[in-house]
Formats: sequence, structure tokens, C-alpha cells
Amino acid sequence: MKTDSTMTAKLLLELQQTWHQTIPVSQFMQVTPVHFDGDQFSCTAPLAPNINLHQTMFAGSIYTLMTLTGWGMLWLQQRVHGVEGNIVLADAHIRYTAPITQAPQVSVTWPESTSLDALKTGGKVKVTLEVQLHCAGKLCATFTGLYVSY
Amino acid sequence: MKTDSTMTAKLLLELQQTWHQTIPVSQFMQVTPVHFDGDQFSCTAPLAPNINLHQTMFAGSIYTLMTLTGWGMLWLQQRVHGVEGNIVLADAHIRYTAPITQAPQVSVTWPESTSLDALKTGGKVKVTLEVQLHCAGKLCATFTGLYVSY
Repeated sequence: MKTDSTMTAKLLLELQQTWHQTIPVSQFMQVTPVHFDGDQFSCTAPLAPNINLHQTMFAGSIYTLMTLTGWGMLWLQQRVHGVEGNIVLADAHIRYTAPITQAPQVSVTWPESTSLDALKTGGKVKVTLEVQLHCAGKLCATFTGLYVSY
Repeated sequence: MKTDSTMTAKLLLELQQTWHQTIPVSQFMQVTPVHFDGDQFSCTAPLAPNINLHQTMFAGSIYTLMTLTGWGMLWLQQRVHGVEGNIVLADAHIRYTAPITQAPQVSVTWPESTSLDALKTGGKVKVTLEVQLHCAGKLCATFTGLYVSY
């Protein structure tokens, strides 16, 4: 579903506030929603609060940023489709393929076939999201998460 | 390899300082090494800086705490065996099975058959570590990480 830009800007601001106000780690990491067009969603975070002892991005921060990007996509889809649900992560796999030396671009595409209708009748939605992290044009990490909303 | 308690206390303090001084997120989360006996290692973190919007422990914090516990185990083993290596996480899988409502106990056991000898001759060590998180006597998350040291 396509969204208009005013609605999108408002949603991204609300998402960022939700994260920063309720998840202290996301505020410390400065996790920032960047773009949402209804099908794709992307986030970033600066390197400084997220470094490790190799002066590259910390594995835990990478995972958290990717997890929140997936979570945010489901949250945005629920908003766009006018349904509500508590979103939790049940299971995740991450693969780190290259060190991250500057602010990353993390993106996720909504699987077209996913229906949120079950949430309208008190049911549960399960969706597997594939999240990618690029840095300087290179794929540096891939994340697969199984999210449940109820 | 068994360790004496003075050596252990010193190592755990050094590990905590290494984390807090080089990984800002670990300091914010107040990740704390608790116990090491040569074969088993455990860590914890308070709930307050690590909550989510459900007032339970945030999925990203859970992962980070478990990742660092595995990383710390390999770091401790290297110290005990007098070898050096840069430790990175290559791949990880986590499964969340119950919400965490109080400070968790995270533990890992060193696989007996693992040799760190390759590090003495400029080689690489790869080790898969299984990390468990218990809260109020219940298993709430399991983590498997492939660590590489070189």
C-alpha cells in the first residue's frame, strides 16, 4: 500500500518517539527511521555510540538496529492498515559479512502476500522479515526475524 | 582449566572495564560479568536500562547480553591459556521463549574439545558457543554464536 509523504513523515516521527521513549537502548544508540514508502522501510544510527573495541560497529548494535527496523516495518504496516497488535520478536538469525566503518543503511521490504486481517478478529499474525544492512554500498549484514503480533 | 579466585576476580574486572571503556552500549546497559570458574561463565544486567515498551527486557538488549557473554568466554579462555586474538562474531541465532521481568542470569559452558593452539602460530580459531538466559529459574532465551579469533 502506497502512502503520502505527510502521513509518512508523521508516522516516522511517531515511531522514533515510541522507540526513544520506551526503549532506552534505542535512544542511546540514536536509532533513526529514515524512509518509508509503504513497501520499503529504512533506518540508520550514527557510529559513535555504537562502536566496539575495533572502532567498527558493535555486533550487538548491528543486531538491535536490524531488529528494530523489522519491528518498525510491522508497526508501520499496522498503522497504514488501521489495525493494532503487540509486536514481539520470537526468533532471529544474523550473519555478519563485513565490518561497518560508517553510518549504515538498514532496509526491509514488506512481503506482499502478508495479511494483517487476523488482527481484526483477535487473532495472531506471524511474519518473517529479511533485513539488510549496507555500508558504503556494500552488504555487511543480513538478518532474518520471525515477528509475532497479537 | 580451573582458575583460582583471585585471578578470576581480576580477570572479570578487566573484562568489564574492557567492555565498558570500548563498547559504549555495554556501559549503558550495565553489562556485568558475574562468575567464571574456567569452564562456565555467567553475566547479568539490570532491567531498568534494558526495558522495552512492554516493560520486559528488550529483545536487542537480550541479544547483546548473550553475545557479550559468549565473547567474554572466549576472551577469558584466551587469557587463561596465555594466547591472544581479536574476537569477532560471524553468525548468530537467538530464540526468545519467555518474557524477562527481572535481572537475568546468562551462562555459557566452554566446549571441552576446543583448542586455542592455532592462535600461537598465527592461525584462526572458530568456536560455536551455546548461551542460555534464565530468569526466575526459567529458561527464557537461547543463543548460538559462531565466534572467530585471529
